Amino acid sequence: MFNIPKDHPRYHSLIARHKLEEGLASGITTPTGMIAHGRGEAFDYLLGEQTHDFSVRACRAAAAEILLAKKTVISINGNTAVLCPEEMIALANASGALLEVNLFHDSKARREKIGEHFHARGASILGIHPNACIEGLTSNRANVDSKGIFDADLVLVSLEDGDRTEALVRSGKKVIAIDLNPLSRTPQRADISIIDNVLRALPEIERQFDLCKSHDIACLAQITALFDNKTVLRDAEAAIRSPKV
Amino acid sequence: MFNIPKDHPRYHSLIARHKLEEGLASGITTPTGMIAHGRGEAFDYLLGEQTHDFSVRACRAAAAEILLAKKTVISINGNTAVLCPEEMIALANASGALLEVNLFHDSKARREKIGEHFHARGASILGIHPNACIEGLTSNRANVDSKGIFDADLVLVSLEDGDRTEALVRSGKKVIAIDLNPLSRTPQRADISIIDNVLRALPEIERQFDLCKSHDIACLAQITALFDNKTVLRDAEAAIRSPKV
Repeated sequence: MFNIPKDHPRYHSLIARHKLEEGLASGITTPTGMIAHGRGEAFDYLLGEQTHDFSVRACRAAAAEILLAKKTVISINGNTAVLCPEEMIALANASGALLEVNLFHDSKARREKIGEHFHARGASILGIHPNACIEGLTSNRANVDSKGIFDADLVLVSLEDGDRTEALVRSGKKVIAIDLNPLSRTPQRADISIIDNVLRALPEIERQFDLCKSHDIACLAQITALFDNKTVLRDAEAAIRSPKV
Repeated sequence: MFNIPKDHPRYHSLIARHKLEEGLASGITTPTGMIAHGRGEAFDYLLGEQTHDFSVRACRAAAAEILLAKKTVISINGNTAVLCPEEMIALANASGALLEVNLFHDSKARREKIGEHFHARGASILGIHPNACIEGLTSNRANVDSKGIFDADLVLVSLEDGDRTEALVRSGKKVIAIDLNPLSRTPQRADISIIDNVLRALPEIERQFDLCKSHDIACLAQITALFDNKTVLRDAEAAIRSPKV
């Protein structure tokens, strides 16, 4: 696919950059999406590019919430569309969650391109023709699918903006956020914050889903009740601030 | 210029992003340049987006080195061309340093566009037609101007790649690097590492130049001898790792 040797020490990072460059060329990703990815790279570097215990704990709580929810929607943006479509589809297939595109720099053309990108991988997604609205959000991200995010009680957002996370929480939905910066508004406001690279976090949620799916409702409720998001954020910031081992 | 209110808490950051987006549209900046800028944003965020004492010390040593050097060249890349052309021109005018474009994703068209970008601001730059070569560097960054970087004893690089910094040091030149990540190779290998945002660092070097220019050679030599780059890197990493005040 790309001419990067698999044993290159920065292989995964370089592949991600190339996917975003391709996405920019095809109109799926945006220039500001590239900058946002760079910020994530820096935080991942400071985390040692590994999944920490605070991420595993949050993934476990996320899996329990998905099992308890009536309708879970995984929200897709320009960056996640090119970085991890397979991982999003795999989690949706495993958990019964729906997929919906939702863009800050929104256009019909971009939505349709992302729809085709998922269709080519055997998945159909919602949000191509938004017909409902999340209140209290001035950006185009307010436009959603009446059968998707609008109707969901649980939304999983990745690499998200803070305004939208706040609006989703205000509208009474539970929000799971995947984000590499524990200091940004999205993980500060989400119910469950997974401070990790989305490429590692999505398979980890799927693993935790497999472990949790045989549990009864009482057990799942225990898992979600024991989960403390403030501790996750505190531990993640400590990991970023402390020298790497 | 851009429709962002001056009192917006992220004004400077948003203006920088817009300049890079414009640069991408005009072919001066590249998609990987956008990602690199995002990494810088994250480190600047962790530094509290302010000039620390370790940066002031390095800027003072840089000013003294410029005064002691026979020929100083300020190297321009795609990102610095759009982010801080005025600041680079001001430092060049104040210090007598030359300006030279040097690109990783090199092309005659990009070099010429950057030349025009500076020409429109009243400055002429070297490197539009490179005619000399820095040894031991396989990338296009090896191609330099015989009257510029090739002939210089001091080179100021910003937002640079590690390979080139190493090649410049190996070729016997002194290197001043402006970089926001003290852990990356460029500041690790440079003689003087200014860990700061280039938009704050360039005017700070100019201020230090004004303070130093009346000193005699013995005094300037004292300043450079007293400067310790390892301490700068250690203090900068500590600032990034410690919680913000």
